[in-house]
Amino acid sequence: MNNGLNALDELIILLSKLPGIGRKSAGRMAYHILDADPLYARMLAGGIAGIHERIKHCSVCGSFTEDDPCPVCTDSGRDSALLCVVEKAQDVRVIEESREFHGRFHVLGGLIAPLEGISPGKLSIGSLISRIRGEGITEIILALNPTVEGDTTALYLQKVLKDSNVIISRLASGLPVGGDLEYTDRLTLSRSFRGRVRL
Amino acid sequence: MNNGLNALDELIILLSKLPGIGRKSAGRMAYHILDADPLYARMLAGGIAGIHERIKHCSVCGSFTEDDPCPVCTDSGRDSALLCVVEKAQDVRVIEESREFHGRFHVLGGLIAPLEGISPGKLSIGSLISRIRGEGITEIILALNPTVEGDTTALYLQKVLKDSNVIISRLASGLPVGGDLEYTDRLTLSRSFRGRVRL
Repeated sequence: MNNGLNALDELIILLSKLPGIGRKSAGRMAYHILDADPLYARMLAGGIAGIHERIKHCSVCGSFTEDDPCPVCTDSGRDSALLCVVEKAQDVRVIEESREFHGRFHVLGGLIAPLEGISPGKLSIGSLISRIRGEGITEIILALNPTVEGDTTALYLQKVLKDSNVIISRLASGLPVGGDLEYTDRLTLSRSFRGRVRL
Repeated sequence: MNNGLNALDELIILLSKLPGIGRKSAGRMAYHILDADPLYARMLAGGIAGIHERIKHCSVCGSFTEDDPCPVCTDSGRDSALLCVVEKAQDVRVIEESREFHGRFHVLGGLIAPLEGISPGKLSIGSLISRIRGEGITEIILALNPTVEGDTTALYLQKVLKDSNVIISRLASGLPVGGDLEYTDRLTLSRSFRGRVRL
C-alpha cells in the first residue's frame, strides 16, 4: 500500500515507541498534531528537543532537575535527617505530588535483579552509605515497589545498613484505597494480613 | 510545590493536550523521552516540527499527502468511476488500511451539524458535485459515521445528488464483528435488523 503519507508514517512510528502508545493511538496523536495550530507542534517539538539539555540528574540525590543540586536537596525547610530511597527519578515526582513526605530523596537508579544483570554494584548504594554518614541521616524510608526485585533490594539495603544506626522502614503493602477484597490477588491479601494495623 | 522540574512540567502539559493522553500518561511519556536516547528525542521533535510543512491536503480529494495531487488521485490503477466520500482526512487512512476499497476519495471536511454551526456550505460539497461531473463518476459510497450528523449529511447528499445519475450507497451499520448481542445498544440492534442480509 502506497498512500504517500511518509512524513506521517514516520511520525506515527516514532510516537508509537512512547510507553502505552500503540499504532492506533499514535495515529490519533499524529493527526491531532497535524490538525492543531502549527504553533502547538513547534512548542511540543521544542519541548521534546530541549528536554535532555534542560533536565539533568541531581548530583546529590539523583532525581531529575534543572538546577544542580535540585531544589529538594537545597531546601533548608526539609528534614535533612530523613531520607526516602526510591528506585527511579520518576518516583520522586509521585511522592512529591502526594505531599506526604518532607525529607530528602535518594534515587538508586534501579532495583537488584540478578536475572537482568543488575547487581548491587550497578546501583547508587555506595553514595547512599556516604550520604548517611555525611549528612547525619537517622531514618530511611524505602519506597520501593512491592515486587520480587523491590523485596530483594530492601533486604540487601537492610543488611548493608545494619551497622549504620539508622531506622529503616518500608512503605506499607496491602489493599489499595477504594479496592475490593473480592478482586484482590492472593499475595496482596497475604501482605495486608501480615501488615495488619491494630485499632 | 516547587521541585524545579519546569522543563519537564512544560513538556508534560504539552503532551497532555494530545488526544487520549491524561496527565499520568503524559508524565510517563515525558520520562520515557528523558530516559531514552537523545537521538530519539531529536527525531521525534523533528517529526513533529516538520509535519505541517511536509504534509498538505490534496487539492483534488482533500486527504493528507506529501505530493499534490495525492498518490491515490494519480494512481491510474484505481477505479476512477467509484468515489468514497468521508468526513475527514484521517478516515482515508483507515479505509486504505482495510484494503477494501479500490476507487478514489473525497473528504468533506466535516459533517452537517447545525448546532455547532456547520452548515452544508462549510463542507466541500461543491467540489464533490464538480468532481462527479468532471471525472465521470458513476458510483458514490458514503463512508460517514453512523451518528446523527452522519445521517443528516448522508440525507443531504442524497438530496443534492438526486439528479446527477450516480448510484449512492452508505456503509452498512450493525453488529461489530466479534461483538455480543447482549451488549449491543438498542439503536445498533435496530439498524442491524433493518439492514439484515438475506442468506
